[in-house]
Amino acid sequence: MIHSYEHKVQYYETDQMGIVHHSNYIRWFEEARINLMDQMGISYQKMEEMGIISPVLSVEADFLRMVRFGGNVLIRAIVTEYNSIKLAVSYQVIDKSTNMVHCKGVTRHCFLNEKGRPISLKKSYPRLHELFEQEYQKGKQLEEKKQESDNSKNHSEAES
Amino acid sequence: MIHSYEHKVQYYETDQMGIVHHSNYIRWFEEARINLMDQMGISYQKMEEMGIISPVLSVEADFLRMVRFGGNVLIRAIVTEYNSIKLAVSYQVIDKSTNMVHCKGVTRHCFLNEKGRPISLKKSYPRLHELFEQEYQKGKQLEEKKQESDNSKNHSEAES
Amino acid sequence: MIHSYEHKVQYYETDQMGIVHHSNYIRWFEEARINLMDQMGISYQKMEEMGIISPVLSVEADFLRMVRFGGNVLIRAIVTEYNSIKLAVSYQVIDKSTNMVHCKGVTRHCFLNEKGRPISLKKSYPRLHELFEQEYQKGKQLEEKKQESDNSKNHSEAES
Amino acid sequence: MIHSYEHKVQYYETDQMGIVHHSNYIRWFEEARINLMDQMGISYQKMEEMGIISPVLSVEADFLRMVRFGGNVLIRAIVTEYNSIKLAVSYQVIDKSTNMVHCKGVTRHCFLNEKGRPISLKKSYPRLHELFEQEYQKGKQLEEKKQESDNSKNHSEAES
Repeated sequence: MIHSYEHKVQYYETDQMGIVHHSNYIRWFEEARINLMDQMGISYQKMEEMGIISPVLSVEADFLRMVRFGGNVLIRAIVTEYNSIKLAVSYQVIDKSTNMVHCKGVTRHCFLNEKGRPISLKKSYPRLHELFEQEYQKGKQLEEKKQESDNSKNHSEAES
Repeated sequence: MIHSYEHKVQYYETDQMGIVHHSNYIRWFEEARINLMDQMGISYQKMEEMGIISPVLSVEADFLRMVRFGGNVLIRAIVTEYNSIKLAVSYQVIDKSTNMVHCKGVTRHCFLNEKGRPISLKKSYPRLHELFEQEYQKGKQLEEKKQESDNSKNHSEAES
Repeated sequence: MIHSYEHKVQYYETDQMGIVHHSNYIRWFEEARINLMDQMGISYQKMEEMGIISPVLSVEADFLRMVRFGGNVLIRAIVTEYNSIKLAVSYQVIDKSTNMVHCKGVTRHCFLNEKGRPISLKKSYPRLHELFEQEYQKGKQLEEKKQESDNSKNHSEAES
Repeated sequence: MIHSYEHKVQYYETDQMGIVHHSNYIRWFEEARINLMDQMGISYQKMEEMGIISPVLSVEADFLRMVRFGGNVLIRAIVTEYNSIKLAVSYQVIDKSTNMVHCKGVTRHCFLNEKGRPISLKKSYPRLHELFEQEYQKGKQLEEKKQESDNSKNHSEAES
């Protein structure tokens, strides 16, 4: 099961092109990432209270189709890289009514202590590490299943 | 002299009505307020470093004319109320090319210490108090001059 | 029944004071207003497609208590003024877990046609007018009930 | 000469981590890109009035160092790819006081007519094409000079 977060597209998110301004997708990624962590049982809020911050090191986004005011989007977030020091989360923004992918993206993160020094979750917070590791393994399985299903689809297409 | 802060209207500030989204004026008020404090010799940054925060208690804004992408606005900020515990700043958003007022507003503030308790600047930070008091007196003089000039204008209009 | 719209407080809505930046409440008012219209059976989107826009003429907000990341707020929106030419909507931002009011506000609007001229909904769009009028009457009844209940509460307090 | 656009870091751009929220860098890229076009003699506003829109196809950003409220950043924007159908602009966000690079990024764009169909500037707007082509050639020369200077620096370092 992929965690899927629903966002209602707001008027204030549009620009004069009549579509959602591209900077807002970056904010939706954050909404979905925080929701993913809630689902994993680690609220970002609690993580900050424990003295861990997880800044964004990089972001990439491909805007495939416009999104307009009045619709609802689902944002799917998957942990696609994790090694206790670095984390990558991948996103798909999907139109709820058509199921089409409108945007794909990825954000990369590290973990810092209160002094701003990088930490290894495995060493400093083994329980947190476990939860991220589990989520990462889930992500890998989903990816493998997807490729198998794509392969078998291509296979049957090749046969026909 | 009224402090006047220039802001270039950004594309991301527009909405699908083709005009600046009204929430952004509230942000421009903040830009102008922080600039006013810079001009007064109290940077908001330093005030926070001294352990004082000055949250917004209320905001009012009248949107008289639309503002569009591509233009420049001047935001005039004046201290219109101040008693060492509370502060009010009034704003005018003016189209730089036409000199017309597009928005009027006011924000009200108090001063809190690091524990979130209200403080009197006069008691706790007399030097800061002096600067706000000076700015407030300047605001009053400006207001009086403006009324005199309005009165004499009305007078001569009445005579003619 | 008051329409009540739920908003999850987002990380990107906070500022370095550690609380929600005040400009975002103005955006939440919009979210709740658009949701209110959805509940009334007039989507703002459809209204724009019909060639009607309804710009914000003014906004007022009182920030009574801070709102922090991680919580959920309910935004109650009520039509408190309406005369087919002008509209006022009043808001309360309520902490979902404590039921305490953190912010109160009001926005005022008119209705414009595609040429930007003010219109009377009663004349030009009688069906829309009816829906706003109904909502306005509902708002008045709620207000009266509230006052009665406040009065009887004060009464019994006075008696005791 | 690289076009360099100055932005004062605003309070409303911070988040509760005490730094500028990463989504705002994407907005700064836009500010710098629009300023670059102003410098080139093509205002984005005029381009839209001519019926051309230039949506963002993708964005990438690497956040190397935090940016804090109170500072000023310079955003350098260079046309790094251009073929009359597609455009890439690269950015560096530089701390004005230290000259250190805090963020690097790139946005990719196409050109659409009013019906949303991709157009070739060379065919449809040869004058616009020329301006983008010139800017692209300038960008290439800058890149070459930079590499020469880096090479000679490495060379002398190797010798010493």
